[in-house]
Amino acid sequence: MTFAERLSRAQHLSGSLVCVGLDPDPAKLPKDLKGAPDRFADSLPLYAFNRRIVDATADIAAAYKPQIAFYSAVGAEDQLVASIRYIRERAPAALVILDAKRNDIGNTAEAYAREAFDRYGADAVTVNPYMGEDSVRPFLARPEHGAILLCRTSNPGAKDFQDLSSDGLPLYRRVAERAAQHWNQNRNLMLVVGATYPREMAELRQAHPEVSFLVPGIGAQGGDLDATLEAGLDAHGAGLLINSSRGIIYAGGGSAAAIRAAAVELAAAINRGRAAHTPPQPAQAAGTV
Amino acid sequence: MTFAERLSRAQHLSGSLVCVGLDPDPAKLPKDLKGAPDRFADSLPLYAFNRRIVDATADIAAAYKPQIAFYSAVGAEDQLVASIRYIRERAPAALVILDAKRNDIGNTAEAYAREAFDRYGADAVTVNPYMGEDSVRPFLARPEHGAILLCRTSNPGAKDFQDLSSDGLPLYRRVAERAAQHWNQNRNLMLVVGATYPREMAELRQAHPEVSFLVPGIGAQGGDLDATLEAGLDAHGAGLLINSSRGIIYAGGGSAAAIRAAAVELAAAINRGRAAHTPPQPAQAAGTV
Repeated sequence: MTFAERLSRAQHLSGSLVCVGLDPDPAKLPKDLKGAPDRFADSLPLYAFNRRIVDATADIAAAYKPQIAFYSAVGAEDQLVASIRYIRERAPAALVILDAKRNDIGNTAEAYAREAFDRYGADAVTVNPYMGEDSVRPFLARPEHGAILLCRTSNPGAKDFQDLSSDGLPLYRRVAERAAQHWNQNRNLMLVVGATYPREMAELRQAHPEVSFLVPGIGAQGGDLDATLEAGLDAHGAGLLINSSRGIIYAGGGSAAAIRAAAVELAAAINRGRAAHTPPQPAQAAGTV
Repeated sequence: MTFAERLSRAQHLSGSLVCVGLDPDPAKLPKDLKGAPDRFADSLPLYAFNRRIVDATADIAAAYKPQIAFYSAVGAEDQLVASIRYIRERAPAALVILDAKRNDIGNTAEAYAREAFDRYGADAVTVNPYMGEDSVRPFLARPEHGAILLCRTSNPGAKDFQDLSSDGLPLYRRVAERAAQHWNQNRNLMLVVGATYPREMAELRQAHPEVSFLVPGIGAQGGDLDATLEAGLDAHGAGLLINSSRGIIYAGGGSAAAIRAAAVELAAAINRGRAAHTPPQPAQAAGTV
């Protein structure tokens, strides 16, 4: 199955555009997973927390997105491997996106692609575009795996360089243009477009109606869901994976019930927005209806 | 000791500007480290190879730069930890630069800083600027540790985005300007400037006389050493760490003698160039002598 087919299948089978971010900060684990007698709580707390999150959301999540920094900071690569294996058992249709923002010259990028796709078995990995084509190609070489390229990110510093304009287009538009036109032969490229910048997202949707966006920034970072849906949904009411990390996994102190409730609520709010959404009219149809 | 002091001390005590890249591709290991009866060769081949490299270059290297992708692709984080510990024993003055090109939003960047500085004990880490200030700051927060920001990289794709011009300055110059003027209060920021683009390096040296550059691209990537020294040396005949990875570690099939010979030759060639170099005149002195 190609990456594009896997993405579409994950959204259809879950009935959802929700991506659950697995960012288990050891300092913020639920109280009952700190020092409890359970051996998982004792020795593998990140894995124990992830099992809880996956159990609570397996029927709702179109994708899971572990942020590798939280595992590599504490030497918990084995818990990341175990967590991804657990997702495959409990939610076999869900995509696994390794959020690693990898980037390097060609032969090193190939090693990073092996890390994401072979070692961890992820379906897709996030990639930084600053180093250009040869640093991105290795992540797009396998049609069954995807690369999700940083475009307009959700953080305050996004404006520092991504908004710099050359010949009338900001850098993030140049990144999207180059990627969509030249690097996407396998239709396995997505873009990271932050929920905190709906105007920029609307421009990108207009320019690239066929490219799917991974959307961080809902919740803790302040992005507005309705504005995101209005700006980013494609002509089929899809084209988005909307990530929530802290807003789901730390809901209600991290209890299973609160995690599930937060994910259900987000999925429902998204689907209400999708039902109410008037798809954007393709530019070429203007004036003909 | 601050990072700036550590950098200066490493260059003085080694008498060298050489940075040895520890990029041990498992497919390219020296023959005698593949399947030999030595237990290191059997179970920890990357560590065994690195011990050989460090033993052969400990008195010559100002810095070592392990490329983390080659370890994380094969689950060899423990061998990276052991290799860095070995560098500390054998070459205590040398800097350890973790080449990881990390980048992410603030709280995740903090986790990556803990990975580089606490888990691995590196002195510095390479960082990608695309996400802007809040994604870079956590790597600059400790005066005794450094961040080395991608500026003009050595690969072919560097031109795709780094050369895009806005208001007359290309992106890589904007990155350098922002970093040097606003983010370097602790004097612990360096820039990655590839040897394959000496004209761009000369411009950057002119604009930022006080910032040190980490220079990849000599050797396998085709960068010219003399052009690099001419373009990049500062007023004190320093200001550079010149990296060689494949050109040193795979020299002569990876024998200890060949590795040492390649490192000695590079260090000597650099020092000949330093001796012959006429320092750039500070711009403000023009016309006064």
